Amino acid sequence: MRIVWIGAGNVATHLSMALAQAGHETLQVFSRTIDSASILAERLGCMATDRAEEIVPNADVYILSIKDDAIDDLIEQALPRCEDALFVHTAGSVPMNVFQPYVRHFGVLYPMQTFSRTKPVDFKEIPVFLEASDEDAMKRLRELATSCTEKIYELSSDRRKQLHLAAVFACNFVNGCYAMAEDLLKAQGLPFEIMLPLIDETARKVHSLSPLMAQTGPAARGDVEVMKHQIALLEDLPEMQELYKTMSRCIYRLKQEKDIK
Amino acid sequence: MRIVWIGAGNVATHLSMALAQAGHETLQVFSRTIDSASILAERLGCMATDRAEEIVPNADVYILSIKDDAIDDLIEQALPRCEDALFVHTAGSVPMNVFQPYVRHFGVLYPMQTFSRTKPVDFKEIPVFLEASDEDAMKRLRELATSCTEKIYELSSDRRKQLHLAAVFACNFVNGCYAMAEDLLKAQGLPFEIMLPLIDETARKVHSLSPLMAQTGPAARGDVEVMKHQIALLEDLPEMQELYKTMSRCIYRLKQEKDIK
Repeated sequence: MRIVWIGAGNVATHLSMALAQAGHETLQVFSRTIDSASILAERLGCMATDRAEEIVPNADVYILSIKDDAIDDLIEQALPRCEDALFVHTAGSVPMNVFQPYVRHFGVLYPMQTFSRTKPVDFKEIPVFLEASDEDAMKRLRELATSCTEKIYELSSDRRKQLHLAAVFACNFVNGCYAMAEDLLKAQGLPFEIMLPLIDETARKVHSLSPLMAQTGPAARGDVEVMKHQIALLEDLPEMQELYKTMSRCIYRLKQEKDIK
Repeated sequence: MRIVWIGAGNVATHLSMALAQAGHETLQVFSRTIDSASILAERLGCMATDRAEEIVPNADVYILSIKDDAIDDLIEQALPRCEDALFVHTAGSVPMNVFQPYVRHFGVLYPMQTFSRTKPVDFKEIPVFLEASDEDAMKRLRELATSCTEKIYELSSDRRKQLHLAAVFACNFVNGCYAMAEDLLKAQGLPFEIMLPLIDETARKVHSLSPLMAQTGPAARGDVEVMKHQIALLEDLPEMQELYKTMSRCIYRLKQEKDIK
């Protein structure tokens, strides 16, 4: 299929490369900043533009991979009104029907993964969640998805929203915890690397145990003395102190509920 | 060395097995509940007891691996007062000098890992942090640690406390995020397994990028619309909603500070 990319961020970069490798042709990359459009276009061997009116009208698929709150405006103002093309966005939290008033065939292809531009990923391992406006759109979306991953699920907008929220906890918030640990270690002159075996085992554990079964630490044990003490250690970091308290309450409650069951 | 274990929990189980495999002899396992003492003692092929007065006085090392807030009482009331033996605890947050008033040679061997009884771990990969009352104690502690791991560090009680706090963030809080994600998925009838590629990549990423560089998601992007929306989705889960807000504030602040630098 001939693809036009709207957006040149992390998701666009990784997904466009995976689709190009699978043999799809990229016609053009559009981005509000010509620099990022050009960088990605060069990697894909296609044209770049930062002018919406220059978006070519002859693609089979237009894939929007931009900040969630920019999608609405972009669809209304910049998208070519092609009858036969398929219009797709890649956002977890944006409902499919943002396309409804403007185009005929549309859908969502949400790859649930964390992408950083400089870190290559194996796309085949990434679960992709699809939703489409009609059978024809779903057929084309499936074809696109199948060419780059083996893990394909269909999911409605409502359920995708919940899935995206769960992913924020399991990825963004997890990484936030890593970042705070790094902060604490730095203050002691300790390298973040010493945390890696613990981080790896924490992730590995939930492959064979449910997270609730795997939960350890002061909050899970209800070890009030240690918690008090650690809260005191965070006195100069009020936001992290607040987080410590809230997180410990959440963990304690989850454990209690499980024990009651 | 001849070892007596005080405690039969997760840390005691894994560390005692690793030391037994390295050729050390276990004389006895003491625990307040005879059942858990017996289970571990059977695996180690030694005696079990739940009576403090029965703890044998002829060991080379007594290793305390019990709840942090039980250590003080146990040392005062139950530990044999052997002049030459080495007394060790394995707790991240408890200072070494809890032993000071009672025994002569003492120290700390803190293995920074998350242990669940049913999940085997490769002890060689686990970083172990040592502290000792005197040179002789450190020599024996090193000998013990060297026999089961390659990653040995010396660390004072104060710095170990901070390290333990960082580990609570990087492990216990991370697992708490997994558990909350599981809760959200369950409510949608989605299996936790679909999260595993994302969880693995999130952990893998911080091997090559600093957590701050690796941070993605609505809070890192300052995507207010998505955050508002996700906060609304958590209306019926007030503790998780609170956590969402606090965590997003922490992540946003960390990102801002980085960008200022």
